[in-house]
Amino acid sequence: MKIIGEKINGTRKRVAQAIAERDAEFIKDLARKQAEAGSTWLDVNAGTHPEKEPDDLIWLVETIQSVVDTPLSLDSANPKALRIAIQAVNKTPMINSISGEPERLAGILPIVAEHACPVIALALDDKKIPETGERRFEVITKIIKETRALGIPDSNLYFDPLAMTLSTNTQSGMIAFETMRCVRQEYPEAHLTIGLSNISFGLPARSFVNRYFLSLAIQSGLDSAILDPLDREIQAAILTTELILGRDNHCLGFIRASRKGLFEKPVQ
Amino acid sequence: MKIIGEKINGTRKRVAQAIAERDAEFIKDLARKQAEAGSTWLDVNAGTHPEKEPDDLIWLVETIQSVVDTPLSLDSANPKALRIAIQAVNKTPMINSISGEPERLAGILPIVAEHACPVIALALDDKKIPETGERRFEVITKIIKETRALGIPDSNLYFDPLAMTLSTNTQSGMIAFETMRCVRQEYPEAHLTIGLSNISFGLPARSFVNRYFLSLAIQSGLDSAILDPLDREIQAAILTTELILGRDNHCLGFIRASRKGLFEKPVQ
Repeated sequence: MKIIGEKINGTRKRVAQAIAERDAEFIKDLARKQAEAGSTWLDVNAGTHPEKEPDDLIWLVETIQSVVDTPLSLDSANPKALRIAIQAVNKTPMINSISGEPERLAGILPIVAEHACPVIALALDDKKIPETGERRFEVITKIIKETRALGIPDSNLYFDPLAMTLSTNTQSGMIAFETMRCVRQEYPEAHLTIGLSNISFGLPARSFVNRYFLSLAIQSGLDSAILDPLDREIQAAILTTELILGRDNHCLGFIRASRKGLFEKPVQ
Repeated sequence: MKIIGEKINGTRKRVAQAIAERDAEFIKDLARKQAEAGSTWLDVNAGTHPEKEPDDLIWLVETIQSVVDTPLSLDSANPKALRIAIQAVNKTPMINSISGEPERLAGILPIVAEHACPVIALALDDKKIPETGERRFEVITKIIKETRALGIPDSNLYFDPLAMTLSTNTQSGMIAFETMRCVRQEYPEAHLTIGLSNISFGLPARSFVNRYFLSLAIQSGLDSAILDPLDREIQAAILTTELILGRDNHCLGFIRASRKGLFEKPVQ
C-alpha cells in the first residue's frame, strides 16, 4: 500500500497561513513527520491563488526538499505551475491530477509523458462525475486511450474512482468498488488510488467510516491512497488489512507495529 | 448481519462456574445484555462434561428463556443432549453444529431435518480441516448433498468456512474468503457464518484483527457471525461496514448508533 501524504495542502487554513507567511519550519515539520510515517509521496498543493501558485509551489518544493528526499506529488490543475515546479524537484514527481476533461488532458498529459511521471487520473469528465461505476469506467477507458497514444505506460497511472460522500448517496462506496474492480480486471498494470476523506463528509464518526472504507477498498484492489499518514487509526487499518489479506510475511509488519505501540490507545 | 451471541459458553471459566453453582442471575444477565445488543440467536454451550451436558443444557435453556425470548443456538456435538434440549426450547433453535464428519452428520442431521432448524455446518471432515478453499468447498458440497437428500432447505444452512489463526498461516483469511465466495456463487440461498475470534489467536492487538476481518468477511458474503455482541468495536465494525456497502438506508442505523454514543471512546 503506497501512501500519498495529504497534509501539505494550501486549501487547509493552517497551511495557507504558513505559505503566506513563508513559515518554513511549519512545512518542514509536516514533511518530516509524513516521511517518517512511511509516505511514498508527499502531496504538495499551493492553494487556490492562480497568480501566486507557481511561486508558492516552488517555495514549498524547495522547503520540503531541504529536509526529506521523499518524492513529491505536485497537486495542481495548472499546467504553467506544474511546468515550473517540475524543474525544481530532485526526484521524478507524481502529478495530481488529470481527468477525462479534454482541457485538462491537453494541458497536463504532455508534461506527464515528457517527464515519465506517475499521474493520478480522476474518473470524471466535462460532463461532471458519472453516477455509475460503469460510466466511470468508460471515462477511465477514454483516458487510457489518450495515455497509451502518448506512450505512457499503464503502470504510471493511478486511477481515482472518486469516493463521494455516503451521506447523500449510500451507494457511493459500492460505485467506487465497482469501478476499482473493473480497472483491476481490464487494466491490471494500472494502479488505483483514492482521496480518502470525501466518503464520510457530512457524517458523524467520520474516522470510523474512513478507516473501514479504506480496508474494504484495499480488498477491492486499492493499492495507494491520499490520506493523513499521521492518523494512527488509518495506519492500523492498513497494517491489519494487509495482514488479513495474507500480504504480511510471518505477520512481521503487524507485530512490529504492535511493539511500537500503534494499537494502544493514545494517552488522553 | 445476524449475530449469534457467544457469551454463554461453558468452556469459558466464569460461565462454567456459573453452571456448576447454578448461578442463574449471572446467566440471565448475559442473556439480557446480549439480547439487548441485537443478537438474533444466543449460543448455549453447556461445556465439556458429557455426562452432565444434558442436565446443564436444560438448566441453561430454562434460565435464559425466563428472561428473554431470543431464539437459542444449541451448541453441542452430542445428539442425546440436543434431543433433550430441543424439547425445552420455546422457539425453533439453531443447531451448532454439524460438519462433514460422517458420525456427526448421522447423529445430528436427522434432528435438524425433523425440527426444521437452522444449522451451522463446519467446512471440515474426518480428515481434519482442509488446507485450501477449494477443498473446504468440496466438504461443503458433500454436506449439502446430504442436507438436500433430507429435504433441508439450503436457506437453513449456515456454513462456517473456518477462520484459523493468521499467526500460523498468513493465508488463513484468504482461504476463508475464497471458501465464502464459492458458497455465495454456487449456493446463493445458503448463509455464511464464522466463529470470529480464532483468526487472531496468538497475535497481539487481537481486537483489531477481529474487527477488520469481520468487515472484510462481510464484503466477501458473510451474513452472520458468532461473536461478542457487547464488544462496541465489533458493533461499530458491523454498522460501519453495512453503511459503506450501501445497506443502511439514509445512513439511519449508523447515525442512530452514533447518537447513542457507540463511536465515542469508552470512559477509561
